[in-house]
Amino acid sequence: MLSVKTPEEVLALIEKEFHPLTGRRELLPLSEAFGRVLAEDITAEEYVPDFDRSTVDGYAVKAGDTFGCSEAIPAILNCTGEVLMGEGADFMLESGCCCAVPTGGAIPQGADSVVMLEYTEDYGDGSIGIAKSAAPGQNLIFRGDDVYPGKTVLKKGRVLSSRDIGALAALGRVQVPVVKKLRVGLISTGDELVPPEEKPGPGQVRDVNGPMLSAMLGAFGAEVISCGIVKDDEAKLRLTVERALKECDAVLLSGGSSVGVKDAACRIIQSLGELLLHGIAIKPGKPTIMGRAGEKPLVGLPGHPVAAWFVTELFVLPLLSRLMGREMKTYTVPARLTESVSANHGRAQYQCVRLEERSGELWAEPIRTKSGLIGTLAGAEGFFCIDRDCEGLPQGAEIQITTGE
Amino acid sequence: MLSVKTPEEVLALIEKEFHPLTGRRELLPLSEAFGRVLAEDITAEEYVPDFDRSTVDGYAVKAGDTFGCSEAIPAILNCTGEVLMGEGADFMLESGCCCAVPTGGAIPQGADSVVMLEYTEDYGDGSIGIAKSAAPGQNLIFRGDDVYPGKTVLKKGRVLSSRDIGALAALGRVQVPVVKKLRVGLISTGDELVPPEEKPGPGQVRDVNGPMLSAMLGAFGAEVISCGIVKDDEAKLRLTVERALKECDAVLLSGGSSVGVKDAACRIIQSLGELLLHGIAIKPGKPTIMGRAGEKPLVGLPGHPVAAWFVTELFVLPLLSRLMGREMKTYTVPARLTESVSANHGRAQYQCVRLEERSGELWAEPIRTKSGLIGTLAGAEGFFCIDRDCEGLPQGAEIQITTGE
Repeated sequence: MLSVKTPEEVLALIEKEFHPLTGRRELLPLSEAFGRVLAEDITAEEYVPDFDRSTVDGYAVKAGDTFGCSEAIPAILNCTGEVLMGEGADFMLESGCCCAVPTGGAIPQGADSVVMLEYTEDYGDGSIGIAKSAAPGQNLIFRGDDVYPGKTVLKKGRVLSSRDIGALAALGRVQVPVVKKLRVGLISTGDELVPPEEKPGPGQVRDVNGPMLSAMLGAFGAEVISCGIVKDDEAKLRLTVERALKECDAVLLSGGSSVGVKDAACRIIQSLGELLLHGIAIKPGKPTIMGRAGEKPLVGLPGHPVAAWFVTELFVLPLLSRLMGREMKTYTVPARLTESVSANHGRAQYQCVRLEERSGELWAEPIRTKSGLIGTLAGAEGFFCIDRDCEGLPQGAEIQITTGE
Repeated sequence: MLSVKTPEEVLALIEKEFHPLTGRRELLPLSEAFGRVLAEDITAEEYVPDFDRSTVDGYAVKAGDTFGCSEAIPAILNCTGEVLMGEGADFMLESGCCCAVPTGGAIPQGADSVVMLEYTEDYGDGSIGIAKSAAPGQNLIFRGDDVYPGKTVLKKGRVLSSRDIGALAALGRVQVPVVKKLRVGLISTGDELVPPEEKPGPGQVRDVNGPMLSAMLGAFGAEVISCGIVKDDEAKLRLTVERALKECDAVLLSGGSSVGVKDAACRIIQSLGELLLHGIAIKPGKPTIMGRAGEKPLVGLPGHPVAAWFVTELFVLPLLSRLMGREMKTYTVPARLTESVSANHGRAQYQCVRLEERSGELWAEPIRTKSGLIGTLAGAEGFFCIDRDCEGLPQGAEIQITTGE
């Protein structure tokens, strides 16, 4: 008999029982790589920049030629050329000479610094007055200062940001090796469920988990295969799960809030593989089951939408991250509670909040509704956790909010 | 002559000079509405749930019939029926009777509470022993407890989260009124630029801003129209800007790091409308210009990729939010500096960081490279700001990190 596990135990179980899938790499054009998971380390093959480059508009000089000069006694240098943007500077700067360069322009050989335009004066006769001495290396970046061959620029498992896309562009990596999207099957179960577009009859409610989890998993970067609503019928459910397993990398059953369906889901998981988890010590979200058919996870989520959301956020996304070899970082934002919250369940309790800034401080208002259903979900801007051992938090208590979609 | 403005002044200028575009509403299927901006308040038209509903497996009772019962002296009630999942309970519960209901099942009229299965005993003769008294309203949610007609569930301007999608599903709002995507034209300028797929020749570099800003704006929810790379030629640039303005709601010019192009961009903006801003007191990002052609913003971003990223993050996204009537919330995460950072520029200084957790505390490592280019972008996990008046921060100083893509 499996016992109810703490959140930490569930995360450890995921780490132990599931492993990154292999052979899941695909090459994508740079324009499609944003938000995807990098499948291998990106190592530079070139120098960036590939030439010594000015960071200002001015004159490239030999620093030694400017030593000791001042506004009162400028150094006078012969201007022997002008580098144009986007062109090379394939000549040698001689002693006593300078050369006009734009910001980003190439520096001729022999020059070791650039004097900004505002410290110079063009005498109009081919000579330039330099009113401020330059230090070697000043106002330029050398070849490879940014990136050099062999330097690891981005690590495998990283979710590519717009900044990373910029870095890849600079390196000319226009084909990016990313982890293929996971296909996640989503089955809603329950005799009471009708699709959102239907008007519920007596005793019926609309399927909330299907569209909600689909949006959530899609945003996370999964390809969601919606298997629709299955009535509480073990044979039909088994058939749907088997079909979904063939097509997908992971299958989520949501619902089955009645005892019978929960038992059926357990039997189905056991017959297809191994049941690993039966209950998590969190509120909401306790009636969660998890199993494995081969390498493929099968998760039975609670039917209660708020519970299903939390279990997906807290455990399913880490599980999918594990399969993808995806780095998962979450940060929390400190806030103060607008009102006291009680807890006394022997379970970690999760609570949605709305956030408001008041005189520079962030305040979190727990969203409470009697039903704990849709009113709790809509408009939420984050959530926090009350530890298992905590009996409640007073108004003004500092809590850690997880924000995000 | 326009003076350099502080970040606060620029945001106020955006608020003053630009306004939400009207007539930009479209209806989307629920499955496509995630991440989009709600174009109007969503008000419930129905009760959710539309029937009194049990929150446990058990027996619906009249609470009064159970008062005073205990394990020793159970109340004995006649079981007069069973409500099935997804079906109505269209009968009246009489005094002295009870009715089996599953979690989520409908409650018959006359019943006012539900006793959990574990506090009951089925005697097998049609009678049920109740070992725990029920309070009226216990273990059920009443019709409309969650949502009732007229209740505003989601506010206009909100970016729809997966939880919001769940709420919309519950309400049967399968067509969602959202703000149409803004079309943003993106022009990279500079004689030195080659597309990322090309190997740069002498004095050339790859266009970083095009792909990077395209990813950034796309993730924000804009439709990016890439107008490619335009050489430093005022007539060509003007033609490209004019064309982009016709097609787009906003146009961003990136680059023109040379003085000539910057002046050309100013002249183009002035001839097409009004120049509103010439320089922002931030580092990096000072050489930013902003103008307006009719209602359409025209922004000249710095050519330096890190500067272009920050100006887009700090000002262009708020500007686009303003046009969309999009709620914009950002939260910061506290962290400690792994090393001291100097600043002494009379400008707010922005710095990218990598984040690392050390014994439960978050530490931020400033990413510093001599060039301040790609090495600064790649792998960044957030950024912070050093105030204009601050001369630097010591190691261990607490800073506020903006994370996110």
